[in-house]
Amino acid sequence: MSFEFDHATHAVPLGDGVYDTPIEDRWDINGNANGGYLLALVANAMREASGRAHPVSVSMHYLAPGPAGPARTHTEVVKSGKRLATVVASLRRDGKDLVRSIGTFGDIDATQGPQSLTLTPPELPAFNDCPTRPASGPAPLGLSSRLDMRLHPDDTGFARNEPNGRALVRGWFKFVDDRPVDTLALLLAADAFPPVMFNLFGMQGWVPTIEFTVHVRGVPAPGPIACVFESHAVQGGYWEEDGAMWDSNGQLVAMSRQLALAPLT
Amino acid sequence: MSFEFDHATHAVPLGDGVYDTPIEDRWDINGNANGGYLLALVANAMREASGRAHPVSVSMHYLAPGPAGPARTHTEVVKSGKRLATVVASLRRDGKDLVRSIGTFGDIDATQGPQSLTLTPPELPAFNDCPTRPASGPAPLGLSSRLDMRLHPDDTGFARNEPNGRALVRGWFKFVDDRPVDTLALLLAADAFPPVMFNLFGMQGWVPTIEFTVHVRGVPAPGPIACVFESHAVQGGYWEEDGAMWDSNGQLVAMSRQLALAPLT
Repeated sequence: MSFEFDHATHAVPLGDGVYDTPIEDRWDINGNANGGYLLALVANAMREASGRAHPVSVSMHYLAPGPAGPARTHTEVVKSGKRLATVVASLRRDGKDLVRSIGTFGDIDATQGPQSLTLTPPELPAFNDCPTRPASGPAPLGLSSRLDMRLHPDDTGFARNEPNGRALVRGWFKFVDDRPVDTLALLLAADAFPPVMFNLFGMQGWVPTIEFTVHVRGVPAPGPIACVFESHAVQGGYWEEDGAMWDSNGQLVAMSRQLALAPLT
Repeated sequence: MSFEFDHATHAVPLGDGVYDTPIEDRWDINGNANGGYLLALVANAMREASGRAHPVSVSMHYLAPGPAGPARTHTEVVKSGKRLATVVASLRRDGKDLVRSIGTFGDIDATQGPQSLTLTPPELPAFNDCPTRPASGPAPLGLSSRLDMRLHPDDTGFARNEPNGRALVRGWFKFVDDRPVDTLALLLAADAFPPVMFNLFGMQGWVPTIEFTVHVRGVPAPGPIACVFESHAVQGGYWEEDGAMWDSNGQLVAMSRQLALAPLT
């Protein structure tokens, strides 16, 4: 496999729905594997088990941080229908669940069926006019060594400790090694950007995701993915982050939502 | 139990994480149990298993329609942490899965932690000035015999076969028997209204949900719940519906999102 992401999400079948799916290093934020990478890693094994082409809707609950190391994905196909198949999975290390997931897999063709879109792509300067994702502190080189993410110049204040008070992050997503962004990679893109909370309240350090769901709505055309993330509701020690991802043809290719923990202080 | 909803979601523990959770009649749309009712039914058993007070985030994938009849919920607590517990579950009848679910449970207090809200409650006429939910065709009395739902007068065109072209439904939610709407009942409220697709394209009949996630964000104050549902993206034979629910104090109490199948024609 010539591309890093294919290597990092490779699932080796061991029989009985179990796949060898080690967590690779340098897909982390401060030592713990990025939640979008874990979603893509587990979803790739689930997709293999489903025998279908694409993840359509995948949800994940995060139970324990996942540093790099050995891990296996245990899958169970709970429904195999004409149009869709549904799979549940757990990612385990040393007998302990790191995540649990449920997902539905099938064909995706955004041009089919009735069409109605009230979302619009984010207004982004050209890829080369956007700064690279600022490092989040003095951490060793992780996710940012794999991804070439460019942020909207207005959304980088958090890195200078100047949050602009808007829970908004817009930017471009591509791989450093130019691997095409396919439907599996959209699961990573949906959680790869800095948390929008950073622009609202300033850097908060580790932001644990409770639940993360991605709906894949199209097969991306070649080119970087334009992404927008925002939070509408921070309260009660929880906050939600909604994402929308667009391909180079201006077609919506994914929507995401996560619920994460905020400090209670 | 004096209230219908408590009876209909009662979970009798049978040991080993299994609960007797029959699907009651008259919580259906045209013979199949409403998806929000199934979510509440299963989530109540999961909450029992978790030992926690409230559903925080619950996701469900729908595998087969659920007419009234016997059913059991099989639960597994996959994490029991200090602040939250995570549970997976299946609702089974005759050895067959009707739904699969994963959820996280814990305490909820909307007043805690940092606050930032960019959503606003829907503009709704007073409860008594809104028409009752129109019946969806000549079906026998189901969900609408249990719930006193009032719709925004501008959002009822679908019932006259006059869709207004906006994928939007706003309305009030309460129980006919005045049972208080608690955090469990919010799971029902999140899927009880007519699909917003009806106002976009006209009545479509059965609208199968693939995946449904509800985030409970507050414990509701007494009174009917103001609800707003809209779809931002219909394409590829799928559509998403987002909901927000507000209590009588104007506090956000839940957010929901589902992915459903649209006809491919």
